[in-house]
Amino acid sequence: MPEAALTLIGAGPGDPEMITLKAIRALGSADVVLYDALVNPQLLEYAPKQAVCQFVGKRFGCHSLSQDEINELIISSAKQYGHVVRLKGGDPFVFGRAVEEIEAASRAGIRVKVVPGISSALSVPAMQMIPLTSRGVAESFWVTTGTTRSGDISGDVYLAARSTATVVILMAMSRIGAIMDIFKEAGKTNVPVAVIQNGTTDQEKILTGKVSGIAAEAEAQGVGNPAVIVIGEVVKWREQLAGIVASAQGHYIYEER
Amino acid sequence: MPEAALTLIGAGPGDPEMITLKAIRALGSADVVLYDALVNPQLLEYAPKQAVCQFVGKRFGCHSLSQDEINELIISSAKQYGHVVRLKGGDPFVFGRAVEEIEAASRAGIRVKVVPGISSALSVPAMQMIPLTSRGVAESFWVTTGTTRSGDISGDVYLAARSTATVVILMAMSRIGAIMDIFKEAGKTNVPVAVIQNGTTDQEKILTGKVSGIAAEAEAQGVGNPAVIVIGEVVKWREQLAGIVASAQGHYIYEER
Repeated sequence: MPEAALTLIGAGPGDPEMITLKAIRALGSADVVLYDALVNPQLLEYAPKQAVCQFVGKRFGCHSLSQDEINELIISSAKQYGHVVRLKGGDPFVFGRAVEEIEAASRAGIRVKVVPGISSALSVPAMQMIPLTSRGVAESFWVTTGTTRSGDISGDVYLAARSTATVVILMAMSRIGAIMDIFKEAGKTNVPVAVIQNGTTDQEKILTGKVSGIAAEAEAQGVGNPAVIVIGEVVKWREQLAGIVASAQGHYIYEER
Repeated sequence: MPEAALTLIGAGPGDPEMITLKAIRALGSADVVLYDALVNPQLLEYAPKQAVCQFVGKRFGCHSLSQDEINELIISSAKQYGHVVRLKGGDPFVFGRAVEEIEAASRAGIRVKVVPGISSALSVPAMQMIPLTSRGVAESFWVTTGTTRSGDISGDVYLAARSTATVVILMAMSRIGAIMDIFKEAGKTNVPVAVIQNGTTDQEKILTGKVSGIAAEAEAQGVGNPAVIVIGEVVKWREQLAGIVASAQGHYIYEER
């Protein structure tokens, strides 16, 4: 019987070079790799050739595994094969439902480790030269999906809108209009916003504008998830550092002046 | 004349394996490496042997370079030698003053790139099995130093204390008493708190408790910067996942029950 073990690994935002050495070493001892939809499949090459690699994400039009089914698969795979690597997009502890997997595995007597990854919340703006903090401009940042488990807009968004924090909202394109309305009510109509879809990948697209107009423009341009919304004065850095904007990877689809 | 270039690289939280492939590749083409105090010096081995490596951080009892002096050094080094790597602890865009360096270099006609790193704000709690988000428990997280540029407690802390966000406060041990008072006033006396000093290194220490008692205990135990303070119900996960706590690296110095 192999020793049952689970390692949750952050695969980073999409660029296959944005993974850590620690993650690569852990992948190198995997017997099974269970990977999500937003993971770059090139990373599977770091797993041994004999490792079983299984996609457990959502695929358009197909049945996708429920969280309970994934938890069960982790446990059965670890008991049958040994070291299960759970490869998750970004960082496993940032909206990754890692806790549910750790708790299930732990209860089944499986040893668990976590290898943090490069979160898309920070790195996708960074690769577009948008810093989440900037001395005297934004001295904190707040990361949210904008909604609670029940799907309602989180009360925290109202507090965030009143703060000086840079606000980063993940996977919220279906709610962008309602979220921008909250920022308008907080007097932030003219605060700059960037929407970055498929950040750090070849399909990257960026849309910039202001709280007032970004939701309509995103709809007009068909920008959807996976996307990172950044609200705050720091978005201006992208334009101010003009020489650098040219080196940013993203296909620039719209800029409101 | 070599082509002048600057790459700002995130060196991660301290563990030398928590650096990305992208960072290692950029270090491999450095002519000069300018590194900060919280950077693990083992990472300098990824630079070519002939590269000039210079420490520009604060060292106890010695004169440290001002931000303006560092900016000047970046520019002169890039013009004289070519590719300057600016190696910063954690992620360069999280309280890293990267904007000031990018702006100065950019104005001097130097091409700039950024390579995001593993932020200590996320990874130090993660390595102690404290997830910043957890479905139904904490659906957002807020990262701050707790103070404004002038050194005052930021107004954002009052908003954060009223939210459901996990609040992560970096490098704020000198203000922990005042910050906890704000959380007490917001009715969070019994919310769990973790203080992690020197996270992900051999010198790691962790202290857990509640908003009510953590500041006094941190003082009694002599816990100081560099430290990450995590305030929120997610801190409980560390204990709940009992089998896992044993595998966490940190030397556990105190636990309030």
